[in-house]
Amino acid sequence: VTRVTALAGGVGAAKLLRGIIRVIPPPSLAVIVNTGDDERFYGLHVSPDVDTTIYTLAGVAPVGRGWGIAGDTSNVLGALERFYTADGWFRLGDQDFATHVRRTHALADGRTLAEVTAELARAFGVESRILPMSDDTVRTIVETRSGETLSFQEYFVKRQARDRVRRLRYRGQRSATPAPGVIDAIRRADLLILPPSNPFTSIRPILGIRGIEHALRRRRVPLVAVSPIAGGRAVRGPLGDMLRAAGFSVSPVGIAEAYRGLLDGMVIDSSDQRWLRPLERSGLAVTMTDVRMDSIPRSVAVARATVALAQEIAGR
Amino acid sequence: VTRVTALAGGVGAAKLLRGIIRVIPPPSLAVIVNTGDDERFYGLHVSPDVDTTIYTLAGVAPVGRGWGIAGDTSNVLGALERFYTADGWFRLGDQDFATHVRRTHALADGRTLAEVTAELARAFGVESRILPMSDDTVRTIVETRSGETLSFQEYFVKRQARDRVRRLRYRGQRSATPAPGVIDAIRRADLLILPPSNPFTSIRPILGIRGIEHALRRRRVPLVAVSPIAGGRAVRGPLGDMLRAAGFSVSPVGIAEAYRGLLDGMVIDSSDQRWLRPLERSGLAVTMTDVRMDSIPRSVAVARATVALAQEIAGR
Repeated sequence: VTRVTALAGGVGAAKLLRGIIRVIPPPSLAVIVNTGDDERFYGLHVSPDVDTTIYTLAGVAPVGRGWGIAGDTSNVLGALERFYTADGWFRLGDQDFATHVRRTHALADGRTLAEVTAELARAFGVESRILPMSDDTVRTIVETRSGETLSFQEYFVKRQARDRVRRLRYRGQRSATPAPGVIDAIRRADLLILPPSNPFTSIRPILGIRGIEHALRRRRVPLVAVSPIAGGRAVRGPLGDMLRAAGFSVSPVGIAEAYRGLLDGMVIDSSDQRWLRPLERSGLAVTMTDVRMDSIPRSVAVARATVALAQEIAGR
Repeated sequence: VTRVTALAGGVGAAKLLRGIIRVIPPPSLAVIVNTGDDERFYGLHVSPDVDTTIYTLAGVAPVGRGWGIAGDTSNVLGALERFYTADGWFRLGDQDFATHVRRTHALADGRTLAEVTAELARAFGVESRILPMSDDTVRTIVETRSGETLSFQEYFVKRQARDRVRRLRYRGQRSATPAPGVIDAIRRADLLILPPSNPFTSIRPILGIRGIEHALRRRRVPLVAVSPIAGGRAVRGPLGDMLRAAGFSVSPVGIAEAYRGLLDGMVIDSSDQRWLRPLERSGLAVTMTDVRMDSIPRSVAVARATVALAQEIAGR
C-alpha cells in the first residue's frame, strides 16, 4: 500500500488515522474531512472535525479525549463570559482560539477553506494532506422529533445528543462542489478508508457532495470501513439511535447497509463475531479486532488490521 | 462640579481618569476616546485607547503599567506564533483577546463602534460613559523622516517610537463625524478636561473631527489640561521630539501652544515652576502638583487639583 485516502468525521476517525500514520508514511495519507459540523462561535469560524484531525495527526490532541489540544487553558472562554451569557457550551481552549482566529482571518482575506486548512496543518507539522470536503458552506441540520431545528453542534455538544432525531439535512450540499484535491485523492488512492465515524452525521455530508460518491463507486481499489459499533452499541455518540431510526440494526451489518453497498470490506469488533458470516454472505471481506482505540497502540493495531484487510481484498 | 467630560488617549489619560472617578461619582464622567490608534491584529479590531480606558476605569488594568489586564496570560498570542511569524510585537493577553473577539463580532453583526464600546464598558462594570470619538474609521499615520509611512501602532509599539517623525496625518478625519453623544457630552459638561495625553497623537485626532473643536471653543465652562511634561521632559512617549519638531518648547508652555489657545487652565508639574508665570501671563490659570501618577493616590491628588482649578476658574 502506498497511498491511503480516508473520509473522516471527528474523534472516531482521528483515532484510526493516528494509527494509519504509524503504519504508512504520513505523507501517503490524504484525509477528506466533514465540514458539515462547522459553526461560527463568537464570530470565529470553527471547523471541529478538521481541527480534531489536525490536532490528532500533529500529536497535540489528548490521547483519550480526542478533541482540543492537550493541556490547553481556557482563559479566553472565561473572559468571553463577560459578554456572552449562554454560549460557553462549546469548549474552546486558548491555543484552539488561535486556530480559529487564524482561520477566520485568512477566510476574511479571501483565502479558501482548503487553503487555510492546508496552512493550519502545515503550521502544526502535519505531513498528511488534510482536505475539507468542500470550500462551500454545507451545514448538517438536525430536525428533532419535537419539531426543533438545531445545528449539529447545538444538537451534539450543547444538548449532548439527547433529542430524538427525526431527520438530518445537509444544507448547501447540492450546490457544493468538492474542494480542490478531493476527487484526485479518491482517484489516486491505493486504499480507501471509512473510519469508525457516524455514517449519518460524518460521512454522508461528504458522500452527498457532487461527484464524491460517484468517484468512490468507480474505484478500482479496496474500500474498507472500520466499524463504529462494538458489542451491539455505538462506541460513542448517538449512532445507535440513528441506526434504529433509519431501520438498520445497531450492528456492523447496519453500518454496511447505511453505506448502501459501497464497501468491499469491514473491520469489526471481536465482540460482534456473530455478524461475521452475515457480512461475508453479503459479499464483504471481514476481519476482527478490538475496534476501541483508547491508546495509540490500539489505534496502530486497528490501522494494521485495516490495511491488511485491504491488501487481502486487492490480492484476490 | 457635577458633569465632567474628558478627551482621552491611552495610558496618560487613564491614569488621570482613575483619579477623577474617585473625586466625582463615576456616572458623572464622560470620556471621548481617540480611536485613531485602532488597528486590526489577526483580523480582530483592537481599540487600544478605548481598552486602556475601560480596563483602567474597571480597575482591572495593572496600576503601574497602565495597559492590558492585570495578571493576564498570553497563551493565544503564543499559539498564534505558529501561524504569524512577525506579528507578536503587539502584546495581547488572553482576556484582552476576548474583548477584541467580542468587538469584532459585534461590528461584523452591524453594530457601531459606539454601541460595542458601551457594551464592553458595561460588561466590565464601568459606570462612566466611554465614547469613541467617531464610529467612522480615522487612522493616525506617521510619516518618518526616512520617508516611511507607519500606522500609529507600528510607529509606537513595534518600532518603539524610535523613528524621527516628519508629519502626522489623520486619515479619514475630514469625512468622519463624531460618534453619537460626543457633542452632547461636550455641551453638557460642567468641566472639560484634557488629560496628560500627547496633543499630537492622542488629542488632535479627536479635535479635528467635524464639530468637536468648534463645540469646545463655544463652551461656557472651564477647559483644563493636565501637563504631560515634568521637569522639561515628557512623562512618557515621544512627545518631547514632537513638540520640538513642531517648534514648541518641551514645557507646559509648549503644550498650551500646541492646543492653540483652547485652554483656560493647566495643572503643571512642581518641577516646572518656572513656567508658571509665563503661562499666567498668557491668560491661563495654573496650579502645581506632581503630575506623575504612578499610584492611585497620586491619580486622586492630580484629579483633585484639576477639579479645584476648574472650580477656581468658574468662580472668577
